[in-house]
Amino acid sequence: MSKKLNIFKIGGKVINEPEQRLGFLHSFSRITGHKILVHGGGNKATELSKKLGIPTKMFEGRRITDEATLDVALMVYAGLINKQIVAQLQALSVNATGLTGADQNSLLAKKRDVGAVDFGFVGDIVAINIEAIRQLLDNAVVPVFCAITHDKNGQLLNTNADHIAASIAGAMATEFDTDLYFCFEKKGVLSDPADEDSVLEQINTTSYLEHKKTGVISDGMIPKLDNAFAALEKGVKAVYICNAQAIAAQSMKNATTLCL
Amino acid sequence: MSKKLNIFKIGGKVINEPEQRLGFLHSFSRITGHKILVHGGGNKATELSKKLGIPTKMFEGRRITDEATLDVALMVYAGLINKQIVAQLQALSVNATGLTGADQNSLLAKKRDVGAVDFGFVGDIVAINIEAIRQLLDNAVVPVFCAITHDKNGQLLNTNADHIAASIAGAMATEFDTDLYFCFEKKGVLSDPADEDSVLEQINTTSYLEHKKTGVISDGMIPKLDNAFAALEKGVKAVYICNAQAIAAQSMKNATTLCL
Repeated sequence: MSKKLNIFKIGGKVINEPEQRLGFLHSFSRITGHKILVHGGGNKATELSKKLGIPTKMFEGRRITDEATLDVALMVYAGLINKQIVAQLQALSVNATGLTGADQNSLLAKKRDVGAVDFGFVGDIVAINIEAIRQLLDNAVVPVFCAITHDKNGQLLNTNADHIAASIAGAMATEFDTDLYFCFEKKGVLSDPADEDSVLEQINTTSYLEHKKTGVISDGMIPKLDNAFAALEKGVKAVYICNAQAIAAQSMKNATTLCL
Repeated sequence: MSKKLNIFKIGGKVINEPEQRLGFLHSFSRITGHKILVHGGGNKATELSKKLGIPTKMFEGRRITDEATLDVALMVYAGLINKQIVAQLQALSVNATGLTGADQNSLLAKKRDVGAVDFGFVGDIVAINIEAIRQLLDNAVVPVFCAITHDKNGQLLNTNADHIAASIAGAMATEFDTDLYFCFEKKGVLSDPADEDSVLEQINTTSYLEHKKTGVISDGMIPKLDNAFAALEKGVKAVYICNAQAIAAQSMKNATTLCL
Protein backbone atom coordinates (compact mmCIF):
# COMPACT_ATOMS: atom_id res chain seq x y z
CA MET A 1 0.00 0.00 0.00
CA SER A 2 1.57 3.26 -1.11
CA LYS A 3 1.62 6.39 1.01
CA LYS A 4 -1.19 8.93 0.88
CA LEU A 5 -0.58 12.28 -0.84
CA ASN A 6 -3.14 15.10 -0.87
CA ILE A 7 -2.72 17.87 -3.42
CA PHE A 8 -4.71 21.09 -3.09
CA LYS A 9 -5.12 23.82 -5.65
CA ILE A 10 -6.44 27.20 -4.56
CA GLY A 11 -7.34 30.21 -6.66
CA GLY A 12 -9.75 33.11 -7.03
CA LYS A 13 -11.15 34.62 -3.84
CA VAL A 14 -9.24 32.15 -1.65
CA ILE A 15 -6.11 33.97 -2.85
CA ASN A 16 -7.52 37.48 -3.11
CA GLU A 17 -9.17 37.80 0.27
CA PRO A 18 -6.71 37.71 3.19
CA GLU A 19 -9.23 36.21 5.62
CA GLN A 20 -10.33 33.46 3.24
CA ARG A 21 -6.71 32.66 2.48
CA LEU A 22 -5.72 32.42 6.12
CA GLY A 23 -8.84 30.34 6.83
CA PHE A 24 -7.86 27.88 4.13
CA LEU A 25 -4.25 27.74 5.32
CA HIS A 26 -5.48 26.92 8.83
CA SER A 27 -7.47 23.99 7.42
CA PHE A 28 -4.56 22.95 5.21
CA SER A 29 -2.21 22.97 8.21
CA ARG A 30 -4.42 20.38 9.93
CA ILE A 31 -4.25 17.88 7.06
CA THR A 32 -1.94 15.09 8.18
CA GLY A 33 0.55 13.22 6.01
CA HIS A 34 2.15 14.24 2.72
CA LYS A 35 0.61 17.27 1.06
CA ILE A 36 1.29 19.77 -1.70
CA LEU A 37 -0.28 23.17 -2.31
CA VAL A 38 -0.61 24.80 -5.74
CA HIS A 39 -1.89 28.35 -6.00
CA GLY A 40 -3.02 30.67 -8.73
CA GLY A 41 -2.54 34.40 -8.71
CA GLY A 42 -6.03 35.70 -8.05
CA ASN A 43 -6.61 39.22 -9.32
CA LYS A 44 -3.40 40.73 -7.95
CA ALA A 45 -1.43 40.35 -11.18
CA THR A 46 -4.13 42.21 -13.10
CA GLU A 47 -4.14 44.91 -10.41
CA LEU A 48 -0.36 45.36 -10.62
CA SER A 49 -0.42 45.39 -14.43
CA LYS A 50 -3.04 48.12 -14.29
CA LYS A 51 -0.96 50.19 -11.84
CA LEU A 52 2.10 49.83 -14.07
CA GLY A 53 0.14 50.72 -17.19
CA ILE A 54 0.71 47.32 -18.79
CA PRO A 55 -2.29 46.49 -21.00
CA THR A 56 -3.95 43.12 -20.38
CA LYS A 57 -4.15 41.32 -23.71
CA MET A 58 -6.65 38.51 -23.99
CA PHE A 59 -7.72 36.08 -26.70
CA GLU A 60 -10.96 34.18 -26.21
CA GLY A 61 -10.75 34.65 -22.45
CA ARG A 62 -7.11 33.55 -22.25
CA ARG A 63 -4.37 35.91 -21.24
CA ILE A 64 -1.50 36.66 -23.62
CA THR A 65 1.78 36.83 -21.68
CA ASP A 66 4.22 39.31 -23.16
CA GLU A 67 7.53 40.04 -21.42
CA ALA A 68 6.15 42.76 -19.15
CA THR A 69 3.21 40.55 -18.17
CA LEU A 70 5.55 37.65 -17.39
CA ASP A 71 7.58 39.90 -15.08
CA VAL A 72 4.37 40.87 -13.31
CA ALA A 73 3.41 37.19 -12.97
CA LEU A 74 6.85 36.42 -11.54
CA MET A 75 6.60 39.27 -9.07
CA VAL A 76 3.06 38.55 -7.92
CA TYR A 77 2.88 34.74 -8.09
CA ALA A 78 6.45 33.71 -7.20
CA GLY A 79 7.28 36.72 -5.02
CA LEU A 80 4.36 38.27 -3.21
CA ILE A 81 1.71 35.55 -2.95
CA ASN A 82 3.94 32.48 -2.77
CA LYS A 83 6.15 33.88 -0.03
CA GLN A 84 3.24 35.26 1.99
CA ILE A 85 1.63 31.80 1.91
CA VAL A 86 4.91 30.11 2.89
CA ALA A 87 5.43 32.52 5.80
CA GLN A 88 1.84 32.02 6.98
CA LEU A 89 2.24 28.23 6.80
CA GLN A 90 5.49 28.41 8.75
CA ALA A 91 3.62 30.34 11.45
CA LEU A 92 1.12 27.44 11.46
CA SER A 93 4.00 24.97 11.96
CA VAL A 94 3.87 23.67 8.39
CA ASN A 95 7.42 23.39 7.06
CA ALA A 96 6.56 24.85 3.66
CA THR A 97 8.87 25.76 0.80
CA GLY A 98 7.79 27.88 -2.15
CA LEU A 99 8.64 26.72 -5.65
CA THR A 100 8.37 27.65 -9.28
CA GLY A 101 9.03 24.96 -11.84
CA ALA A 102 12.60 26.28 -12.19
CA ASP A 103 13.39 25.55 -8.55
CA GLN A 104 15.05 22.14 -8.42
CA ASN A 105 13.91 21.81 -12.03
CA SER A 106 10.66 20.56 -10.55
CA LEU A 107 8.29 21.40 -13.43
CA LEU A 108 9.63 21.41 -16.95
CA ALA A 109 7.44 23.10 -19.56
CA LYS A 110 7.48 23.87 -23.25
CA LYS A 111 6.54 27.29 -24.57
CA ARG A 112 3.24 26.95 -26.35
CA ASP A 113 3.64 26.79 -30.13
CA VAL A 114 2.59 29.89 -31.99
CA GLY A 115 -0.56 28.98 -33.88
CA ALA A 116 -3.28 31.35 -34.96
CA VAL A 117 -2.45 33.29 -31.80
CA ASP A 118 0.89 33.79 -30.04
CA PHE A 119 0.11 33.39 -26.35
CA GLY A 120 3.64 34.55 -25.53
CA PHE A 121 5.51 33.22 -22.52
CA VAL A 122 3.01 30.52 -21.67
CA GLY A 123 4.16 26.98 -21.03
CA ASP A 124 2.57 23.55 -21.00
CA ILE A 125 4.12 20.97 -18.71
CA VAL A 126 6.20 18.26 -20.33
CA ALA A 127 7.89 16.68 -17.28
CA ILE A 128 7.51 16.55 -13.52
CA ASN A 129 10.63 15.94 -11.41
CA ILE A 130 9.08 13.23 -9.23
CA GLU A 131 12.41 12.53 -7.50
CA ALA A 132 12.87 16.16 -6.37
CA ILE A 133 9.31 16.41 -5.09
CA ARG A 134 9.55 13.05 -3.28
CA GLN A 135 12.81 14.17 -1.64
CA LEU A 136 11.04 17.22 -0.21
CA LEU A 137 8.08 15.13 1.00
CA ASP A 138 10.46 12.56 2.53
CA ASN A 139 12.13 15.40 4.44
CA ALA A 140 8.70 16.46 5.77
CA VAL A 141 8.79 19.61 3.66
CA VAL A 142 5.50 20.81 2.12
CA PRO A 143 5.97 22.10 -1.44
CA VAL A 144 3.96 25.22 -2.34
CA PHE A 145 3.91 25.71 -6.11
CA CYS A 146 2.98 28.92 -7.89
CA ALA A 147 1.87 29.13 -11.51
CA ILE A 148 5.36 29.55 -13.02
CA THR A 149 7.42 26.92 -14.85
CA HIS A 150 10.56 27.01 -16.99
CA ASP A 151 11.93 25.49 -20.18
CA LYS A 152 15.44 24.59 -18.84
CA ASN A 153 16.88 27.05 -21.35
CA GLY A 154 16.62 29.99 -18.96
CA GLN A 155 13.10 31.02 -19.91
CA LEU A 156 10.44 31.22 -17.19
CA LEU A 157 6.89 30.56 -18.33
CA ASN A 158 3.40 31.39 -17.12
CA THR A 159 1.48 28.14 -16.62
CA ASN A 160 -2.10 27.56 -15.59
CA ALA A 161 -2.28 26.50 -11.93
CA ASP A 162 -4.99 23.88 -12.55
CA HIS A 163 -2.74 22.32 -15.20
CA ILE A 164 0.19 22.35 -12.74
CA ALA A 165 -1.83 20.74 -9.95
CA ALA A 166 -3.25 18.04 -12.23
CA SER A 167 0.15 17.34 -13.81
CA ILE A 168 1.85 16.98 -10.42
CA ALA A 169 -0.98 14.75 -9.18
CA GLY A 170 -0.79 12.56 -12.29
CA ALA A 171 2.98 12.15 -11.97
CA MET A 172 3.02 11.54 -8.21
CA ALA A 173 0.21 8.96 -8.56
CA THR A 174 2.86 6.51 -9.80
CA GLU A 175 4.34 6.47 -6.29
CA PHE A 176 1.66 7.77 -3.94
CA ASP A 177 -2.02 7.10 -3.29
CA THR A 178 -2.92 10.59 -4.56
CA ASP A 179 -6.06 12.70 -4.14
CA LEU A 180 -6.49 16.08 -5.82
CA TYR A 181 -8.66 18.94 -4.57
CA PHE A 182 -9.55 21.98 -6.66
CA CYS A 183 -10.69 24.51 -4.06
CA PHE A 184 -12.52 27.67 -5.02
CA GLU A 185 -15.33 29.93 -3.86
CA LYS A 186 -18.24 27.76 -5.02
CA LYS A 187 -19.30 24.48 -3.44
CA GLY A 188 -18.54 22.48 -6.57
CA VAL A 189 -19.54 22.33 -10.22
CA LEU A 190 -23.00 23.93 -10.38
CA SER A 191 -25.77 22.86 -12.76
CA ASP A 192 -27.24 26.35 -12.39
CA PRO A 193 -24.65 29.13 -11.89
CA ALA A 194 -27.32 31.25 -10.15
CA ASP A 195 -28.02 28.54 -7.57
CA GLU A 196 -25.11 27.97 -5.19
CA ASP A 197 -26.69 24.73 -4.01
CA SER A 198 -27.09 23.12 -7.44
CA VAL A 199 -23.89 21.11 -7.01
CA LEU A 200 -23.39 18.21 -9.41
CA GLU A 201 -22.36 15.58 -6.88
CA GLN A 202 -20.66 13.29 -9.30
CA ILE A 203 -19.40 13.70 -12.85
CA ASN A 204 -17.94 10.88 -14.89
CA THR A 205 -16.52 10.96 -18.39
CA THR A 206 -19.92 10.12 -19.89
CA SER A 207 -21.94 12.70 -17.96
CA TYR A 208 -19.16 15.24 -18.56
CA LEU A 209 -19.70 14.93 -22.32
CA GLU A 210 -23.45 15.34 -21.88
CA HIS A 211 -23.08 18.39 -19.62
CA LYS A 212 -20.79 20.00 -22.16
CA LYS A 213 -23.26 19.27 -24.95
CA THR A 214 -26.18 20.78 -23.07
CA GLY A 215 -24.08 23.76 -21.96
CA VAL A 216 -24.45 22.97 -18.25
CA ILE A 217 -20.67 22.91 -18.10
CA SER A 218 -18.99 25.67 -20.08
CA ASP A 219 -16.27 28.31 -20.25
CA GLY A 220 -13.56 28.22 -17.58
CA MET A 221 -14.89 25.03 -16.03
CA ILE A 222 -14.00 23.00 -19.15
CA PRO A 223 -10.18 23.29 -18.97
CA LYS A 224 -10.38 22.69 -15.20
CA LEU A 225 -12.33 19.46 -15.71
CA ASP A 226 -10.15 18.42 -18.66
CA ASN A 227 -7.15 18.70 -16.34
CA ALA A 228 -9.00 16.79 -13.64
CA PHE A 229 -9.93 13.87 -15.92
CA ALA A 230 -6.37 13.75 -17.29
CA ALA A 231 -5.16 13.31 -13.70
CA LEU A 232 -7.67 10.50 -13.07
CA GLU A 233 -6.52 8.77 -16.23
CA LYS A 234 -2.95 8.86 -14.91
CA GLY A 235 -4.00 7.03 -11.76
CA VAL A 236 -5.03 9.78 -9.33
CA LYS A 237 -7.48 8.12 -6.93
CA ALA A 238 -10.00 10.91 -6.51
CA VAL A 239 -10.48 14.45 -7.77
CA TYR A 240 -12.79 16.88 -5.98
CA ILE A 241 -14.01 20.31 -7.01
CA CYS A 242 -14.93 21.93 -3.73
CA ASN A 243 -15.26 25.01 -1.60
CA ALA A 244 -12.15 25.89 0.37
CA GLN A 245 -14.23 25.58 3.53
CA ALA A 246 -15.03 21.94 2.78
CA ILE A 247 -11.37 21.24 3.58
CA ALA A 248 -11.94 22.50 7.12
CA ALA A 249 -14.96 20.23 7.53
CA GLN A 250 -12.96 17.40 5.91
CA SER A 251 -16.12 16.42 4.09
CA MET A 252 -16.64 16.19 0.36
CA LYS A 253 -20.35 15.38 0.78
CA ASN A 254 -21.53 18.66 -0.77
CA ALA A 255 -18.73 18.90 -3.31
CA THR A 256 -18.31 17.53 -6.82
CA THR A 257 -16.50 14.21 -7.08
CA LEU A 258 -15.05 13.27 -10.44
CA CYS A 259 -14.62 9.69 -11.62
CA LEU A 260 -13.79 7.98 -14.88
CA MET B 1 38.66 17.08 7.09
CA SER B 2 35.24 18.63 6.54
CA LYS B 3 33.76 19.27 3.11
CA LYS B 4 34.38 22.51 1.26
CA LEU B 5 31.54 25.05 0.93
CA ASN B 6 31.82 28.24 -1.12
CA ILE B 7 29.31 31.01 -0.48
CA PHE B 8 28.98 33.90 -2.93
CA LYS B 9 27.13 37.14 -2.42
CA ILE B 10 26.35 39.32 -5.42
CA GLY B 11 24.83 42.78 -5.55
CA GLY B 12 24.90 46.12 -7.32
CA LYS B 13 25.69 46.09 -11.03
CA VAL B 14 26.15 42.30 -11.05
CA ILE B 15 22.39 42.16 -10.43
CA ASN B 16 21.33 45.20 -12.44
CA GLU B 17 23.12 44.50 -15.71
CA PRO B 18 21.86 41.39 -17.51
CA GLU B 19 25.22 40.68 -19.19
CA GLN B 20 27.23 41.04 -15.98
CA ARG B 21 24.74 38.82 -14.19
CA LEU B 22 24.88 36.08 -16.80
CA GLY B 23 28.69 36.36 -16.87
CA PHE B 24 28.85 35.82 -13.13
CA LEU B 25 26.39 32.92 -13.28
CA HIS B 26 28.55 31.25 -15.94
CA SER B 27 31.55 31.50 -13.59
CA PHE B 28 29.48 30.35 -10.63
CA SER B 29 28.27 27.33 -12.59
CA ARG B 30 31.88 26.18 -13.03
CA ILE B 31 32.66 26.19 -9.28
CA THR B 32 32.76 22.56 -8.20
CA GLY B 33 31.52 21.18 -4.90
CA HIS B 34 28.99 22.60 -2.47
CA LYS B 35 28.02 26.20 -3.08
CA ILE B 36 25.41 28.77 -2.09
CA LEU B 37 24.46 32.03 -3.78
CA VAL B 38 23.04 35.06 -1.95
CA HIS B 39 21.83 38.05 -3.94
CA GLY B 40 20.76 41.58 -3.21
CA GLY B 41 18.16 43.48 -5.17
CA GLY B 42 20.22 45.95 -7.14
CA ASN B 43 18.29 49.06 -8.15
CA LYS B 44 15.19 47.26 -9.42
CA ALA B 45 13.22 47.62 -6.20
CA THR B 46 13.80 51.38 -6.20
CA GLU B 47 12.74 51.50 -9.87
CA LEU B 48 9.52 49.59 -9.18
CA SER B 49 8.74 51.74 -6.11
CA LYS B 50 9.14 54.82 -8.26
CA LYS B 51 6.81 53.44 -10.95
CA LEU B 52 4.21 52.63 -8.30
CA GLY B 53 4.56 56.04 -6.66
CA ILE B 54 5.81 54.59 -3.37
CA PRO B 55 8.16 57.11 -1.76
CA THR B 56 11.60 55.80 -0.76
CA LYS B 57 12.13 56.67 2.89
CA MET B 58 15.70 56.69 4.12
CA PHE B 59 17.41 57.41 7.44
CA GLU B 60 21.16 57.98 7.39
CA GLY B 61 21.50 56.08 4.14
CA ARG B 62 19.40 53.12 5.33
CA ARG B 63 16.07 52.31 3.79
CA ILE B 64 12.91 52.32 5.89
CA THR B 65 10.69 49.39 4.91
CA ASP B 66 7.00 50.18 5.24
CA GLU B 67 4.36 47.67 4.13
CA ALA B 68 4.27 48.84 0.50
CA THR B 69 8.06 48.78 0.32
CA LEU B 70 8.15 45.25 1.77
CA ASP B 71 5.71 44.09 -0.92
CA VAL B 72 7.99 45.62 -3.56
CA ALA B 73 11.01 43.85 -2.02
CA LEU B 74 9.10 40.55 -2.05
CA MET B 75 8.11 41.00 -5.66
CA VAL B 76 11.51 42.08 -6.93
CA TYR B 77 13.90 40.06 -4.75
CA ALA B 78 11.94 36.84 -4.17
CA GLY B 79 9.94 36.91 -7.41
CA LEU B 80 11.66 38.57 -10.33
CA ILE B 81 15.39 38.42 -9.61
CA ASN B 82 15.53 35.20 -7.61
CA LYS B 83 13.56 33.19 -10.15
CA GLN B 84 15.40 34.64 -13.15
CA ILE B 85 18.69 33.62 -11.52
CA VAL B 86 17.38 30.13 -10.71
CA ALA B 87 16.13 29.63 -14.29
CA GLN B 88 19.45 30.85 -15.71
CA LEU B 89 21.37 28.50 -13.41
CA GLN B 90 19.16 25.57 -14.41
CA ALA B 91 20.01 26.35 -18.04
CA LEU B 92 23.69 26.14 -16.98
CA SER B 93 23.04 22.71 -15.45
CA VAL B 94 23.18 23.98 -11.86
CA ASN B 95 20.34 22.42 -9.88
CA ALA B 96 19.41 25.65 -8.10
CA THR B 97 16.49 26.36 -5.81
CA GLY B 98 15.44 29.86 -4.79
CA LEU B 99 14.74 30.58 -1.15
CA THR B 100 13.65 33.27 1.22
CA GLY B 101 14.23 32.72 4.91
CA ALA B 102 10.62 31.54 5.20
CA ASP B 103 11.18 28.64 2.82
CA GLN B 104 11.96 25.58 4.92
CA ASN B 105 12.29 28.05 7.79
CA SER B 106 15.87 28.48 6.60
CA LEU B 107 16.61 31.95 7.99
CA LEU B 108 14.83 33.08 11.13
CA ALA B 109 14.98 36.80 11.86
CA LYS B 110 13.72 39.25 14.44
CA LYS B 111 12.11 42.54 13.44
CA ARG B 112 14.51 45.29 14.41
CA ASP B 113 13.49 47.02 17.62
CA VAL B 114 12.07 50.49 17.23
CA GLY B 115 14.69 52.87 18.59
CA ALA B 116 15.11 56.52 17.62
CA VAL B 117 13.99 55.38 14.16
CA ASP B 118 11.47 52.72 13.16
CA PHE B 119 13.06 50.92 10.22
CA GLY B 120 9.81 49.05 9.65
CA PHE B 121 9.77 45.50 8.33
CA VAL B 122 13.51 44.95 8.61
CA GLY B 123 14.89 41.85 10.26
CA ASP B 124 18.17 40.79 11.78
CA ILE B 125 18.98 37.09 11.64
CA VAL B 126 18.69 35.14 14.87
CA ALA B 127 18.95 31.55 13.61
CA ILE B 128 20.10 29.63 10.54
CA ASN B 129 18.48 26.26 9.82
CA ILE B 130 21.76 24.41 9.22
CA GLU B 131 19.96 21.07 8.92
CA ALA B 132 17.67 22.29 6.09
CA ILE B 133 20.55 23.87 4.17
CA ARG B 134 22.73 20.77 4.60
CA GLN B 135 19.88 18.58 3.34
CA LEU B 136 19.72 20.63 0.14
CA LEU B 137 23.51 20.52 -0.32
CA ASP B 138 23.53 16.75 0.35
CA ASN B 139 20.94 16.36 -2.41
CA ALA B 140 23.23 18.32 -4.77
CA VAL B 141 20.83 21.26 -4.78
CA VAL B 142 22.33 24.77 -4.88
CA PRO B 143 20.45 27.20 -2.59
CA VAL B 144 19.95 30.71 -3.99
CA PHE B 145 18.91 33.08 -1.21
CA CYS B 146 17.36 36.49 -1.72
CA ALA B 147 17.33 39.26 0.88
CA ILE B 148 14.08 38.24 2.59
CA THR B 149 13.68 36.48 5.95
CA HIS B 150 10.74 35.82 8.28
CA ASP B 151 9.93 35.86 12.00
CA LYS B 152 8.05 32.49 12.12
CA ASN B 153 4.93 34.44 13.11
CA GLY B 154 3.88 35.00 9.51
CA GLN B 155 5.79 38.24 8.98
CA LEU B 156 8.28 38.45 6.11
CA LEU B 157 11.18 40.83 6.67
CA ASN B 158 13.62 42.74 4.51
CA THR B 159 17.17 41.72 5.48
CA ASN B 160 20.51 42.96 4.22
CA ALA B 161 22.03 40.45 1.79
CA ASP B 162 25.58 40.86 3.17
CA HIS B 163 24.22 40.06 6.63
CA ILE B 164 22.44 36.98 5.24
CA ALA B 165 25.55 35.72 3.42
CA ALA B 166 27.80 36.25 6.46
CA SER B 167 25.26 34.66 8.83
CA ILE B 168 24.86 31.58 6.63
CA ALA B 169 28.64 31.29 6.27
CA GLY B 170 29.17 31.60 10.02
CA ALA B 171 26.57 28.94 10.76
CA MET B 172 27.68 26.49 8.07
CA ALA B 173 31.32 26.85 9.17
CA THR B 174 30.48 24.52 12.08
CA GLU B 175 30.08 21.69 9.55
CA PHE B 176 31.88 22.76 6.37
CA ASP B 177 35.24 24.22 5.45
CA THR B 178 33.60 27.49 4.40
CA ASP B 179 34.84 30.39 2.23
CA LEU B 180 32.80 33.54 1.67
CA TYR B 181 33.03 35.83 -1.37
CA PHE B 182 31.44 39.29 -1.51
CA CYS B 183 31.34 40.03 -5.25
CA PHE B 184 30.68 43.49 -6.57
CA GLU B 185 31.72 45.86 -9.34
CA LYS B 186 35.05 46.98 -7.80
CA LYS B 187 38.17 44.82 -7.53
CA GLY B 188 38.15 44.92 -3.74
CA VAL B 189 38.24 47.42 -0.89
CA LEU B 190 39.90 50.51 -2.37
CA SER B 191 42.21 52.85 -0.43
CA ASP B 192 41.32 55.57 -2.94
CA PRO B 193 37.76 55.40 -4.32
CA ALA B 194 38.91 57.26 -7.43
CA ASP B 195 41.61 54.69 -8.22
CA GLU B 196 40.18 51.32 -9.23
CA ASP B 197 43.60 49.70 -8.74
CA SER B 198 44.17 50.88 -5.17
CA VAL B 199 42.99 47.56 -3.75
CA LEU B 200 43.84 46.87 -0.11
CA GLU B 201 45.16 43.33 -0.51
CA GLN B 202 44.70 42.29 3.06
CA ILE B 203 42.76 43.73 5.96
CA ASN B 204 42.90 42.31 9.47
CA THR B 205 41.03 43.44 12.58
CA THR B 206 43.86 45.81 13.55
CA SER B 207 44.28 47.47 10.15
CA TYR B 208 40.48 47.62 9.83
CA LEU B 209 40.29 49.82 12.94
CA GLU B 210 43.03 52.07 11.58
CA HIS B 211 41.40 52.37 8.17
CA LYS B 212 38.12 53.34 9.82
CA LYS B 213 39.89 55.93 11.98
CA THR B 214 41.64 57.54 9.00
CA GLY B 215 38.49 57.40 6.92
CA VAL B 216 39.99 55.13 4.24
CA ILE B 217 37.12 52.73 4.96
CA SER B 218 33.77 54.44 5.42
CA ASP B 219 30.06 54.45 4.67
CA GLY B 220 28.57 51.32 3.13
CA MET B 221 31.83 49.38 3.32
CA ILE B 222 31.71 49.37 7.15
CA PRO B 223 28.62 47.17 7.64
CA LYS B 224 29.91 44.86 4.86
CA LEU B 225 33.25 44.42 6.63
CA ASP B 226 31.59 44.12 10.05
CA ASN B 227 29.57 41.23 8.63
CA ALA B 228 32.71 39.74 7.09
CA PHE B 229 34.70 39.84 10.34
CA ALA B 230 31.74 38.39 12.26
CA ALA B 231 31.81 35.43 9.84
CA LEU B 232 35.57 34.95 10.36
CA GLU B 233 35.07 34.98 14.11
CA LYS B 234 32.51 32.18 13.72
CA GLY B 235 35.07 30.01 11.94
CA VAL B 236 34.72 30.91 8.26
CA LYS B 237 38.11 30.08 6.71
CA ALA B 238 38.48 33.01 4.31
CA VAL B 239 36.45 36.05 3.31
CA TYR B 240 37.15 37.86 0.05
CA ILE B 241 35.84 41.18 -1.25
CA CYS B 242 36.26 40.87 -4.99
CA ASN B 243 35.09 41.70 -8.46
CA ALA B 244 32.56 39.29 -9.90
CA GLN B 245 35.01 38.62 -12.73
CA ALA B 246 37.66 37.38 -10.29
CA ILE B 247 35.41 34.35 -9.79
CA ALA B 248 35.82 33.50 -13.47
CA ALA B 249 39.60 33.75 -13.17
CA GLN B 250 39.40 31.77 -9.90
CA SER B 251 42.08 34.08 -8.54
CA MET B 252 41.85 36.32 -5.49
CA LYS B 253 45.29 37.83 -6.17
CA ASN B 254 43.93 41.28 -6.98
CA ALA B 255 41.10 41.16 -4.47
CA THR B 256 40.86 42.01 -0.78
CA THR B 257 41.40 39.13 1.62
CA LEU B 258 40.13 39.56 5.16
CA CYS B 259 41.69 37.85 8.16
CA LEU B 260 41.40 38.14 11.91
